[in-house]
Amino acid sequence: MNIRTIEWKNNAVRIIDQTRLPAEFVYLAIKDLKSLWLAIKKLKVRGAPALGAAAAWGVYLGVKNIRARNFSHFKRRLDKVISYLSSARPTAINLFWALERMRAVAECYSKESIQEIKKALFKEAQTIAEEDRAACRRIGCFGSRLINDGENILTICNAGILATIDYGTALAVIYRAKEEGKRLKVYACETRPLLQGARLTTWELKRKGIDVTLITDGMAAALMYAGKVDKVIVGADRIAANGDTANKIGTYNLAILSRYHKIPFYVAAPVSTFDLRIKRGKEIRIEQRPAEEVTRLFFKKPIANGNIKVFNPAFDITPAALISNFITDRGIINKPYSRNILKTLRG
Amino acid sequence: MNIRTIEWKNNAVRIIDQTRLPAEFVYLAIKDLKSLWLAIKKLKVRGAPALGAAAAWGVYLGVKNIRARNFSHFKRRLDKVISYLSSARPTAINLFWALERMRAVAECYSKESIQEIKKALFKEAQTIAEEDRAACRRIGCFGSRLINDGENILTICNAGILATIDYGTALAVIYRAKEEGKRLKVYACETRPLLQGARLTTWELKRKGIDVTLITDGMAAALMYAGKVDKVIVGADRIAANGDTANKIGTYNLAILSRYHKIPFYVAAPVSTFDLRIKRGKEIRIEQRPAEEVTRLFFKKPIANGNIKVFNPAFDITPAALISNFITDRGIINKPYSRNILKTLRG
Repeated sequence: MNIRTIEWKNNAVRIIDQTRLPAEFVYLAIKDLKSLWLAIKKLKVRGAPALGAAAAWGVYLGVKNIRARNFSHFKRRLDKVISYLSSARPTAINLFWALERMRAVAECYSKESIQEIKKALFKEAQTIAEEDRAACRRIGCFGSRLINDGENILTICNAGILATIDYGTALAVIYRAKEEGKRLKVYACETRPLLQGARLTTWELKRKGIDVTLITDGMAAALMYAGKVDKVIVGADRIAANGDTANKIGTYNLAILSRYHKIPFYVAAPVSTFDLRIKRGKEIRIEQRPAEEVTRLFFKKPIANGNIKVFNPAFDITPAALISNFITDRGIINKPYSRNILKTLRG
Repeated sequence: MNIRTIEWKNNAVRIIDQTRLPAEFVYLAIKDLKSLWLAIKKLKVRGAPALGAAAAWGVYLGVKNIRARNFSHFKRRLDKVISYLSSARPTAINLFWALERMRAVAECYSKESIQEIKKALFKEAQTIAEEDRAACRRIGCFGSRLINDGENILTICNAGILATIDYGTALAVIYRAKEEGKRLKVYACETRPLLQGARLTTWELKRKGIDVTLITDGMAAALMYAGKVDKVIVGADRIAANGDTANKIGTYNLAILSRYHKIPFYVAAPVSTFDLRIKRGKEIRIEQRPAEEVTRLFFKKPIANGNIKVFNPAFDITPAALISNFITDRGIINKPYSRNILKTLRG
């Protein structure tokens, strides 16, 4: 069976419910705005690129039944929908980027009928998804050139098919390298607290026939010391103009360990993940999530005292200096990043 | 209620069943050798110093009902008991150290009656426990001098009361500093896979009125970057003659992060944890534990595909160069370690 992370199907946004993997592989058909907002909030759909498409389709779900007298009436409603969706999660830029694209399309069509605007919005959402699929393929192509036959790759969280429309970002590099006949071994950090590595990355890599071994997050240094890691590849949730990168909590950790062991550390992401309005990592807002994610397994089984204090940021910032290269859909970005990121994004 | 990790009571070794904390606080009375071996194997009792006492009482449990014709007959049975106990877990030196002390005592009493030898063995086990209690107090005293009022301390796993007879090693420093009126804040790494930090360290620190915050292991770097860690203190399972230190998996990880953020990194342990027969860390045998510890929560609830490959070393080796100081019951050990460890142990 193929994996379709998110798509428009039978008048609904159909997603894989990622909170139920790997125990159950089930699709959810989301037909209204609030359910979509909740699916993002509860991480049923997650991963920066997938969130872009989810938000875009969310806008369409939010406006498709609006009966507006005129554009300004429609626009007020649209702005509310966009503002609501942008409150679901704060860190991944792709969500905001997609919402702004949707807003711009509506403005572009302001002279058309409400029906035409809705059609244009739907089409834009489809385009965002299609573009993401193509971008991931290109990330795979560019990234694979950095990988040699027989290498061992370490990754964290899930930057694969389940984080995108298809193919992934960090894992796209691995899929492509495999298609080119390179033999690889992947190590997946389990990625506490929500175990996206243990639950999602090992699941999709295994389905794709990739040799994968699971480790706990604290084992990465020992694995590197043992000479079992040739490259580290991670995804990104938002990249500042200077290259500082927000990604799943634990990424900064891995970047420091990679530097200490002299292992190349790559960030794979589409250009939509770069946020040029943000100069450096410190300005990126980091989502703080509930303590129960740490003290209870999936909010159920308690694994620590329920009433203890918990620090639970969902992301951390890896300073640009620790990143060997960015792998984007427009090619590899080398240092100095401030200049070369600008050059790549402005084409 | 007081915490008594392990003691001899009513003709049995009474331990707290640490696999059931924090949900249940129950004591187990262990009356035979095999149950004691299993309690060590299954981590019902754990922590290097506590394992020393457990092994010593285990020897007594194993020989107390032997009816031997003569010393050589008794000695053959004793050697079997010691060899059986030494197969429970391979890394913590204190277990082997205590077993050798017990063997030496028996040899010392070879001219006495079997009854006298048994008495001497029982007394030696009690002495090992008493010595550990005193050693932990001294570790606390020496270590507290390194801690300033208002500091934030990060630790991993459990090197506290629950890992010793009383007071702990790394946590002894914190308990003592608090007794001296210093205000401290402790961050506890949850310590996957078996969550000794989340389950045990937060539990005992909270009982002792220490301000503790739980983090996942991957959050340590972000916490350090945020300026929230002034010192890192960890325990040890075995320390080589050059200072390379085996401790809970994830310790080496923290040591690298500490170096990168210029944070002092201390190892607290009694001199019984040093193993001068081992020159460097590479020679220390690292216990590999079952995959199910990672893929299932406490061997029950699955949290990843059951049939994936897992790398699950219980310990890692922190190279001596990353350790700022050792805090022992005979004082602080400074660099150069090879010379000063020898001096401290022989001194």
